[in-house]
Amino acid sequence: MSTNAERFYERHAESLRAAGLACRERSYFTLFPETPDRHRGGAAAAEAGAAAYRSLLGRPFELDQPGTIGRIGAEVSPYTLEALGIDYPLADPDRLFAAARDAMGRWAAATPQARLGTCMEIVDRLYGGVFETAQAVMHTAGQSGPMSYAGSGTNALDRGVEALAYAQAALLDVPVEALWERRFGSATIRLRKRYRLVPRGVAACFACATFPTWNAYPAMLASLATGNAVIVKPHPTAILPMALAVRTCRAVLAEAGFAPDLVTLCLDSAEAPVGKILVKHPQTAIVDFTGSARFGAWVEANAHPALCYSETSGVNTVVVESVTALEPVLKSLATTMSLFSAQMCTSPLNVYLPRDGVRHAGGRIGADEFAAALAQAIAAIAADPQRAAPIMAAIQSPATPALIDQIAADAGRRGRVLQASAPYAHPEFPRARTRTPLLVAVDAGARDLYGEERFGPIGFVITTEDRDAALAEAAADARAGGGITAFVYSTDEEYLERAESAYSAAGAQLTCNLTGPMPLNFAAAYSDYHVTGLNPAGNATLTDLAFVASRFRITQSRSPVS
Amino acid sequence: MSTNAERFYERHAESLRAAGLACRERSYFTLFPETPDRHRGGAAAAEAGAAAYRSLLGRPFELDQPGTIGRIGAEVSPYTLEALGIDYPLADPDRLFAAARDAMGRWAAATPQARLGTCMEIVDRLYGGVFETAQAVMHTAGQSGPMSYAGSGTNALDRGVEALAYAQAALLDVPVEALWERRFGSATIRLRKRYRLVPRGVAACFACATFPTWNAYPAMLASLATGNAVIVKPHPTAILPMALAVRTCRAVLAEAGFAPDLVTLCLDSAEAPVGKILVKHPQTAIVDFTGSARFGAWVEANAHPALCYSETSGVNTVVVESVTALEPVLKSLATTMSLFSAQMCTSPLNVYLPRDGVRHAGGRIGADEFAAALAQAIAAIAADPQRAAPIMAAIQSPATPALIDQIAADAGRRGRVLQASAPYAHPEFPRARTRTPLLVAVDAGARDLYGEERFGPIGFVITTEDRDAALAEAAADARAGGGITAFVYSTDEEYLERAESAYSAAGAQLTCNLTGPMPLNFAAAYSDYHVTGLNPAGNATLTDLAFVASRFRITQSRSPVS
Repeated sequence: MSTNAERFYERHAESLRAAGLACRERSYFTLFPETPDRHRGGAAAAEAGAAAYRSLLGRPFELDQPGTIGRIGAEVSPYTLEALGIDYPLADPDRLFAAARDAMGRWAAATPQARLGTCMEIVDRLYGGVFETAQAVMHTAGQSGPMSYAGSGTNALDRGVEALAYAQAALLDVPVEALWERRFGSATIRLRKRYRLVPRGVAACFACATFPTWNAYPAMLASLATGNAVIVKPHPTAILPMALAVRTCRAVLAEAGFAPDLVTLCLDSAEAPVGKILVKHPQTAIVDFTGSARFGAWVEANAHPALCYSETSGVNTVVVESVTALEPVLKSLATTMSLFSAQMCTSPLNVYLPRDGVRHAGGRIGADEFAAALAQAIAAIAADPQRAAPIMAAIQSPATPALIDQIAADAGRRGRVLQASAPYAHPEFPRARTRTPLLVAVDAGARDLYGEERFGPIGFVITTEDRDAALAEAAADARAGGGITAFVYSTDEEYLERAESAYSAAGAQLTCNLTGPMPLNFAAAYSDYHVTGLNPAGNATLTDLAFVASRFRITQSRSPVS
Repeated sequence: MSTNAERFYERHAESLRAAGLACRERSYFTLFPETPDRHRGGAAAAEAGAAAYRSLLGRPFELDQPGTIGRIGAEVSPYTLEALGIDYPLADPDRLFAAARDAMGRWAAATPQARLGTCMEIVDRLYGGVFETAQAVMHTAGQSGPMSYAGSGTNALDRGVEALAYAQAALLDVPVEALWERRFGSATIRLRKRYRLVPRGVAACFACATFPTWNAYPAMLASLATGNAVIVKPHPTAILPMALAVRTCRAVLAEAGFAPDLVTLCLDSAEAPVGKILVKHPQTAIVDFTGSARFGAWVEANAHPALCYSETSGVNTVVVESVTALEPVLKSLATTMSLFSAQMCTSPLNVYLPRDGVRHAGGRIGADEFAAALAQAIAAIAADPQRAAPIMAAIQSPATPALIDQIAADAGRRGRVLQASAPYAHPEFPRARTRTPLLVAVDAGARDLYGEERFGPIGFVITTEDRDAALAEAAADARAGGGITAFVYSTDEEYLERAESAYSAAGAQLTCNLTGPMPLNFAAAYSDYHVTGLNPAGNATLTDLAFVASRFRITQSRSPVS
């Protein structure tokens, strides 16, 4: 074990132990306070991070990795609509694979502790630079400042530590050696057995455009801790957050005495995509994919012989059957459907209502009336830019407004537009690409519109025959289209029990009767299992043993001892 | 939890706990003594088992499962060359899948303890019937009596319990529920979270012809314990051992209060194979495959979206560099290369020698001389039917003698036949299909002959440039062709270290300098990891966490609590 790596493990062993305990108890735990004012670096860290981000703009990004054959980069801030002006090394994939393989020898031979310690130190450094990363996420993904810091910063780092805690459990499940003894006939055979943990090889980690770090940190760290190398492939419109992560990984690996080429950046453009090349590369042993359902399905079907861990779309459904008080439910739904303009894989999108409406403490509200009230609650956020900005943030892709308009036109013909989508004036960034949520009312005949994820602030209210149909259709759509999250409001315990079973069968994680300040779709590291693998939303869970246990293999040798 | 299943768990919890401890320590452990005389049922059990086997012959096998559309079965004993005369239900696969899905609801909803208890009771009943199973294995696979009892009986059951111990660890890693609490702004959110373990679906388990139970028991039990149903697909020439297992599973499941259709038997013939139909069936969620490298490669590439766990061929290599004493090495090699006529996926096949021979305490023996001595040691076994019978047993497939003769003819042109293969007269079964091992000498130019598994008693001695070439070529052939086991003899510690690294990289489990009464290829449950997944010999390991952790998924629901 290298001295530095050993020191890293000693420094972080207690945090990792506590994280592992939290994973088994699934109770609240964090290593990183979620609000910037509690960062260990204080206000100075925030200022330094913002300055560091500004200093990156308009110049080449320094990343000393092998195989560079050019420069690439055309990111545009969704907030300013200005080019970031950063270019990055464009790599020859073959040379990244070759460098990764060269780098893997010592890394694979290191103890699990040395690798885990190094990975924890990477996390710690990323936390040190979280303000810079948050700015990078904000100006590529379009997230709000608070979400960039918490969701893409601290929570993503916690998910990374969670993956390391599972990796530690799986790695340490295999002893270093054993003494085995038994009799064969009149003789006693005593064998000393030594076990080695052998990584799969090179992992290709695809990060998405809207939430790059949240899935990529756990995937990268799970692969690294189990001895693999990682080639990181960001979305071409959101490179910077992952470039910063790759640079940090390389620096810490070098400091720990390992080859930095264990982590490299592989970029492409929409015109010349490298994704399929990475997936089908003969040296690719693991693919972690976060992105579109369409390409994700291709990756899942074509990754063999590489392992594939995917998260793609989210057809996330809401059933409102009965409530105690309407107002808190409407407020929570409107807020969460507006949050980051529904550009999260966990955003609720489709609201299913019984035709005869929703019971509440004061009586019953008709389905149309409930839908109108939900539209009104969204409109109330949209109408106030000071309130809208931290919730809705910006629209990542220039393609999204066109999609919104197309769905609005379709829905106008086949249903009703309850709430039109329009830009709102961001108080801080007047040129920001913004859109308030579109909310349309349709019936079950329009499943071609709402049965697959329509990425962006596009919500549907679907009126169904009755409460049983609402639940059955919502769960069936989650099963068929791929739901990650699901939400049910009911005061009927029996109905809730049925909902729990229906969504369990559909493979969507259910939240019941939640109101209040927590976003309905908040997924807590160490506690909430993210993605079940039981429907088309993806095949991998953050984080369970299955996410880590196959990333390495076991070899052994045995010899007689006297 | 059903009362009976609960009782089963209570009965076996301590055994399962001890097995789990053994898995983590990898020390010697067994629940089932390996010699018939120590069976809990005493001599009466042996007699009853033999009688039970005889009573099966010449009549329909009673198996009351759904979807029967005919009868099938044409097994022939390799010992008597007589038809067993047993026919079995021929099932419509679609109806087996439908029945399995129907049966899964209650099984999936049961507690892990109820399922684990039921599975342990299945193991216990199989142990109760081990004499009958041993006879069935002997007269289908052609194993010797002792191997049928130990290898296909008690050791296979231990491997099954090992899989259950890992399943228990993975299942219990997920808590039933959690209380999660944190502040959002000025409010405290408290959520009760409930987690469910959800099986993947229906598993198709392919058993091979020569060692049906050893891989199938762990696969079936791992799938069952994690809530899945299993359709068992035996090789058409070795149905009976698996039919007995299926019948036992169904009886215990029913007794535990679950639907017996969780385990069914799906048969076919060489003329109308059902394998690809099972692998590509839309309801197939898991495939466990043991069988040929050719079909195995197809299964691995085509199982998606089902999970695939495979074990195929074994290009198992031996390097003899230097020894203390020649005689024990030659004896161990000759015996293990003769064991069950090398029809084990772990049988050593290719012996690599340095051109300048093998050092030993008394000097140096030339490569040709060593090869001749090895042939002589094999001939000594072959020449004595009383000694040959319990070691070599019978040849499972009528195709094997022709393959032996073809390789002998090829090798005669391109190398030298060191030891010709011939039938030996089995003292107990004069009509038995037997063949003594063929041993041929070739050089590295004949890799097309020895670079892939030649199933049966076909050994190669390959003379290489020097000791470094011997190791390099042997490890490279194991890597390329798929080695499960590997064997090195050297008195040079530095050479052994290099061998350990080379075979670890090649993905073959190494045994160094072993002599004495233990078969060189003996793989101990709870201690030896079988198959690494790092070369074409298969992708699954018996048993690690990865073998079980992906067979189920996790869903959750969460609700506010005050």
